[in-house]
Amino acid sequence: MKKETIYPIDKWNIIEKSFDIRNNYRNETIFSLSNGYIGTRGTQDEDYSFDLEIGMEGNYVNGVYESADIRYGEANFGSPLKSQTLLNLPNMKTISMVIDGECFSLLSSHFENYERCLSLKTALLTKKLVWITKSGKRLDVLVKRIVSFENKHLLLQRLELKAVNFTGELDVNFILNAKVENNTRKTNPIVDYGPYGICLQPKQIIEEKKVILYEGETKGSHIKVGCGFGVNITPEKNLISSNTVIDEFSAQKKFGIKLQEDEVVIIDKHMVYTSSLEANHNDISNEVVCLVTETLANGGDYYFEYQKKYMEKFWENAAIEIVGIGADSVIQGLNFNLFHIFQGAGRDEKCGMPAKALTGEGYEGHYFWDTEMYMIPLLIYTQPEIAKALLSWRYNTLDEARNRARILGHSSGALFPWRTINGQEASTYYPLGTAQYHINADISYAVSLYYQATGDVEFMLSYGAEILLETARVWADVGDFADVKEGKYCICSVTGPDEYNVLVDNNFYTNIMARENLRDAVNIYQWMKEEHEDSLNKLVNIINFNEDEIKLFKQIIEKMYLPYDKKLGIFPLDDGFLMRKRWDENKIPEEKRAWLYENYHPLFIMRHKMSKQADSMLALFLYNNYFSEEEIKRNYDFYQKVTLHHSSLSTSIFGIIASDIGYDEEAYGYFITSARMDLDDHHNNVYAGIHGANMAGTWQALVNGFAGMRLQNGVLSFKPNLPKAWDKLSFQILFKSNLIKITLEKTQTKYELIKGKNVCFLLRRNRTLVELHKEGDCYLEKI
Amino acid sequence: MKKETIYPIDKWNIIEKSFDIRNNYRNETIFSLSNGYIGTRGTQDEDYSFDLEIGMEGNYVNGVYESADIRYGEANFGSPLKSQTLLNLPNMKTISMVIDGECFSLLSSHFENYERCLSLKTALLTKKLVWITKSGKRLDVLVKRIVSFENKHLLLQRLELKAVNFTGELDVNFILNAKVENNTRKTNPIVDYGPYGICLQPKQIIEEKKVILYEGETKGSHIKVGCGFGVNITPEKNLISSNTVIDEFSAQKKFGIKLQEDEVVIIDKHMVYTSSLEANHNDISNEVVCLVTETLANGGDYYFEYQKKYMEKFWENAAIEIVGIGADSVIQGLNFNLFHIFQGAGRDEKCGMPAKALTGEGYEGHYFWDTEMYMIPLLIYTQPEIAKALLSWRYNTLDEARNRARILGHSSGALFPWRTINGQEASTYYPLGTAQYHINADISYAVSLYYQATGDVEFMLSYGAEILLETARVWADVGDFADVKEGKYCICSVTGPDEYNVLVDNNFYTNIMARENLRDAVNIYQWMKEEHEDSLNKLVNIINFNEDEIKLFKQIIEKMYLPYDKKLGIFPLDDGFLMRKRWDENKIPEEKRAWLYENYHPLFIMRHKMSKQADSMLALFLYNNYFSEEEIKRNYDFYQKVTLHHSSLSTSIFGIIASDIGYDEEAYGYFITSARMDLDDHHNNVYAGIHGANMAGTWQALVNGFAGMRLQNGVLSFKPNLPKAWDKLSFQILFKSNLIKITLEKTQTKYELIKGKNVCFLLRRNRTLVELHKEGDCYLEKI
Repeated sequence: MKKETIYPIDKWNIIEKSFDIRNNYRNETIFSLSNGYIGTRGTQDEDYSFDLEIGMEGNYVNGVYESADIRYGEANFGSPLKSQTLLNLPNMKTISMVIDGECFSLLSSHFENYERCLSLKTALLTKKLVWITKSGKRLDVLVKRIVSFENKHLLLQRLELKAVNFTGELDVNFILNAKVENNTRKTNPIVDYGPYGICLQPKQIIEEKKVILYEGETKGSHIKVGCGFGVNITPEKNLISSNTVIDEFSAQKKFGIKLQEDEVVIIDKHMVYTSSLEANHNDISNEVVCLVTETLANGGDYYFEYQKKYMEKFWENAAIEIVGIGADSVIQGLNFNLFHIFQGAGRDEKCGMPAKALTGEGYEGHYFWDTEMYMIPLLIYTQPEIAKALLSWRYNTLDEARNRARILGHSSGALFPWRTINGQEASTYYPLGTAQYHINADISYAVSLYYQATGDVEFMLSYGAEILLETARVWADVGDFADVKEGKYCICSVTGPDEYNVLVDNNFYTNIMARENLRDAVNIYQWMKEEHEDSLNKLVNIINFNEDEIKLFKQIIEKMYLPYDKKLGIFPLDDGFLMRKRWDENKIPEEKRAWLYENYHPLFIMRHKMSKQADSMLALFLYNNYFSEEEIKRNYDFYQKVTLHHSSLSTSIFGIIASDIGYDEEAYGYFITSARMDLDDHHNNVYAGIHGANMAGTWQALVNGFAGMRLQNGVLSFKPNLPKAWDKLSFQILFKSNLIKITLEKTQTKYELIKGKNVCFLLRRNRTLVELHKEGDCYLEKI
Repeated sequence: MKKETIYPIDKWNIIEKSFDIRNNYRNETIFSLSNGYIGTRGTQDEDYSFDLEIGMEGNYVNGVYESADIRYGEANFGSPLKSQTLLNLPNMKTISMVIDGECFSLLSSHFENYERCLSLKTALLTKKLVWITKSGKRLDVLVKRIVSFENKHLLLQRLELKAVNFTGELDVNFILNAKVENNTRKTNPIVDYGPYGICLQPKQIIEEKKVILYEGETKGSHIKVGCGFGVNITPEKNLISSNTVIDEFSAQKKFGIKLQEDEVVIIDKHMVYTSSLEANHNDISNEVVCLVTETLANGGDYYFEYQKKYMEKFWENAAIEIVGIGADSVIQGLNFNLFHIFQGAGRDEKCGMPAKALTGEGYEGHYFWDTEMYMIPLLIYTQPEIAKALLSWRYNTLDEARNRARILGHSSGALFPWRTINGQEASTYYPLGTAQYHINADISYAVSLYYQATGDVEFMLSYGAEILLETARVWADVGDFADVKEGKYCICSVTGPDEYNVLVDNNFYTNIMARENLRDAVNIYQWMKEEHEDSLNKLVNIINFNEDEIKLFKQIIEKMYLPYDKKLGIFPLDDGFLMRKRWDENKIPEEKRAWLYENYHPLFIMRHKMSKQADSMLALFLYNNYFSEEEIKRNYDFYQKVTLHHSSLSTSIFGIIASDIGYDEEAYGYFITSARMDLDDHHNNVYAGIHGANMAGTWQALVNGFAGMRLQNGVLSFKPNLPKAWDKLSFQILFKSNLIKITLEKTQTKYELIKGKNVCFLLRRNRTLVELHKEGDCYLEKI
């Protein structure tokens, strides 16, 4: 699996040393920028033909989707009828430069000293090169790009130009191109429906108050999108002429600029996006003009500076230090991963975080359980406000989830959609979609984890409790106490995380997660009853909740059935798992092995005794407190043999458990496989977008794995196990507003309270409770 | 469930006493005619608007289908990409009669003495009425219609006209209308794909040698269809004028006819259909002209006469006699059922028998397991040649089934499609389609039953053995010996006949049927090895069969796992059945109860502990020899409580077992429910076509139920149990070319050899082996 390094090892920068069109598609993803609202692929500033062999332009606004009728061979009751596809928006990044009638092109011009660099530390993308025209004129070109954290609507491009050996004129052309299409279908042959073609219908493209303004509306989802840009040129005196050309699907703003030898001209292009999902539906145009005008007035420097400071704060909490073999390489991978998670997460409570963040159209830009089980845990400990925003977005879709529960036959409660943008179920194949009821427990898990880590009472009273109770209700309705299992509570016909084992009975992960969902619901109910009775009464009233339901919840918690094989001493993936046909990978041609669903019928896949990814293992990580180490070992040994790791969500979890049970080499191996998965493009598919869950998973593999961190029943705990290859590993976490630094070394682990007061946690190796009272306090755990 | 009788009780005739447009749609199905090749709905001869509220014209040729691209929300590997829809063909039945410029219409003309009658005995549909024109002219109209058993291409209409009180002129207009569409989608909202619109593209409509000739080709499946008609008028002298009008989609042949008071004019219209599936692709037109000319030359009388004699022979073997309460009503229902099965079965080895025969477009005219498990058993004992033709058709699709097995990941063997016309899988929803692997065992069961009942060695050597071995191979590959089930052979992720329990492990029916499929394969192999080594060698060579496979088959037979619950002493439907959620019908609004899939998500349905139809029960009927009566009783008691009978295939099977275990009242109840299901239109859906499986099931409920007939391991046996309501029940069966009459009476059962010699069978009540040596021999079994 280990592949060669693509980019130079550099902890804080991803650097492309030369332009090669063959790497373009991949680099577009790698160099993507986002602020959780806007996402823009790392496409080149220069115009080139977006043949899907070489690249895919992509500009997205989180939550803005197009919709089309879904057609089915045979539709079922409750099959979603409207698709949701993250919409590719007009592209405004393109710049064309002309000297003496010669237009600069990466494909055909002569240029030197090309370098592109993504600064992870500052969220700044720069590109520099020297363009040598046919007549020998040398132009230094530096392009800077940020997607602003100060103003979420802003995508900012700065062009710094210096004539090296001449004085003359330059034409710069800034282009808005609205003739864009989505590429979902082209990159995903199994999705056989729209939206096709150009989805945004232009309502107007005009220039108003020096702002190039576009307004359009989607055909299917009827979302209005507004975007536009304005330009600042410094020094202003160098501007000779300007000219605007507008046609049906595009606008061009052309500037004639005087270049003085050795003098730098700076051109800032302020591009903004907004949509009717938040701006006033009837006044989007005005909104765009205001936004552009405001940001132009603030000036580019302000935003570049803000960006730097904002990122500094992030890394203050999130930075990881490793000393040891291959440390720089690992750190680069981790920083790259943390950067993408951080920048890609929705922050405005109106959207979530797509599986590929906003770096591509893979999975149609849908939000899955990845957010709650992989990304949010990382954010909870580093950027709890973002975690809260993501969970608040889920809360904001509760009504849709309640409707969905009714469609699935539950008379009360809420069932969250397996995949969605607008809160409605968008899964067109329920065996791998809606059947994954565990989404309910995953969201509840994240809510509960958020509360344990932050103590955010207000969130729980306003949002969290309602989510916990409504999701729990579905668990209390979906299964039943079965005589044939000695009265245990069984849940049939669901699909767990493992998409190779479909529509099974008593999926271990699902049942245990459901039980804990119910337990969290009971706990929050009892806590509110004792301490926040008014809030409880209000809530109970709103959702028509009856205290008898708590009794039922408790019975189910008590009686939840977990499949167990006495002979093997393991928890099978589900009731039928051990009966399935033995898997013989040798019978599968090598080129088909990693792509089973593309090459084999679902029935072939599901009848075999093998697992796509961590499933039971994930439950055993999250709730290891219910199991003995011996049990976990036996299960690890078993699953390690039957798991194919065909999901990017798998290895990080195996790594965590391996570390926990002292399988050090395997733990390290899994971690290394995960850490640079996207940066080294292990699966040759980064072009379609990053793998957010794995990226966040690597952080978990480090923190929950090597440091053995857990947060269960409100108790934070650690069980460090530093990889042999390393001399040191340190990271920081926020826990109830306290910043704690954990430093693993060969002979000791140091726990230090950096900010805050009165922190308490457990060392699991020797069952020691540690208290750190004031800043600077630290505790040394000797190995 | 019992509904009022719609048609007068008459053992041999279905009579409509007056025309009511509100009953039209239903009557079109009831009065359908077929010969297994052509099927024509019982639409009126007069033209009327085919609004889908009042009716649906339908003319079909078995095996002729249209095909369109199927679209999926998410396609899986192996999802069929082309649909198959029994094609609605040009209609040639329409006749318009005009006197004094007044055109006869059932909707607006004045007429008296209307009566339509389907003679089950002679397969003749007649309609009579007296038309009274506005000026008071009375015309006796008699229309006869047959679909010929003499020439499968022929649909024959005879018009007998008599001017009662006038002498004058009549214009008769015979119409060919090719502007026809399929109605599948309109009547089946869950199928969301074509073919839409007019599928047959006319190549030519001409008149040639007095034959109105149509030739067209389908857009998607590229099947050429030819049809045409010619007319004979007697006496010829009455023909005054003739005239032909042809346009893009239709042809009209107009005759001016002189009517002499009190004189009968007879007009025969010979309509033929053929297609490129059998006629020479390039010469279909000539084929049509020849067929029409030939049948015109033979004259209508010949075909009407042949029809009568042919049907006489059928009833000679098939007729049933009942004496007792409600006997006539039951007999009428049974005769109606037998008639439809008999007329609708494909006979030419090029097609099967659709679930609704050729009476409508329900299920798109696909062939299912109904043929093998419901219809063929009846045909084996009454018309073994037809059974053989149907099984030969399956044989002819073996290559398609082999391909399908490869797609499903089996490196050898054949997997028959769950639903098909052309031999390829047409199921667009695999959980209720391809997952029903039992189709393989069902076909093998029918092959084996056919052989046991006929002793047709030739068939087995040429066709049967290959089917048995190829299907068995899939059973030997789909499952595995599971340690967790003490080394028993388990089959996971299949769907049994019960479509409410989907993708289950170890479906009892499937596993037992698979075991017997393997056993039949082993037996045929050993028998051929001993007695037909040359044939075996040839076969083994063709299918590359290895004797080691027989060893594996034997191990699987030995080790086949059957789910069994010790506490309840029953065979659960599958491994997970008893764990599922308790079903509470009271929670389902009454109007939704019978239509679960239309009102509930599949996950809701499959997680509940209830059964759509006979599933385990069917296995316990077919292989009761492996179980004790006590066991069967316990299972019956269990399944009787959890079965909703939402499939028309259910009650007949429950009836059979109820009778076997002495639950006489229930047996009788189930039988009565089934016997007139279509004739009394119990489910208000006969308009879309008959329910072939139930129709054949009623015969099984009588013969396998009340007479307790079984044929297992080559031994024919009986265990009669005459319903209390009856004094007598008699029927005949063919067994190895011997015609045996069985007569159940209150105090005895009489077994009589009507034709043939040396028949041997077992009386199961007292384990007596009976031998009848010569015609007329009989045996009395005293009760």
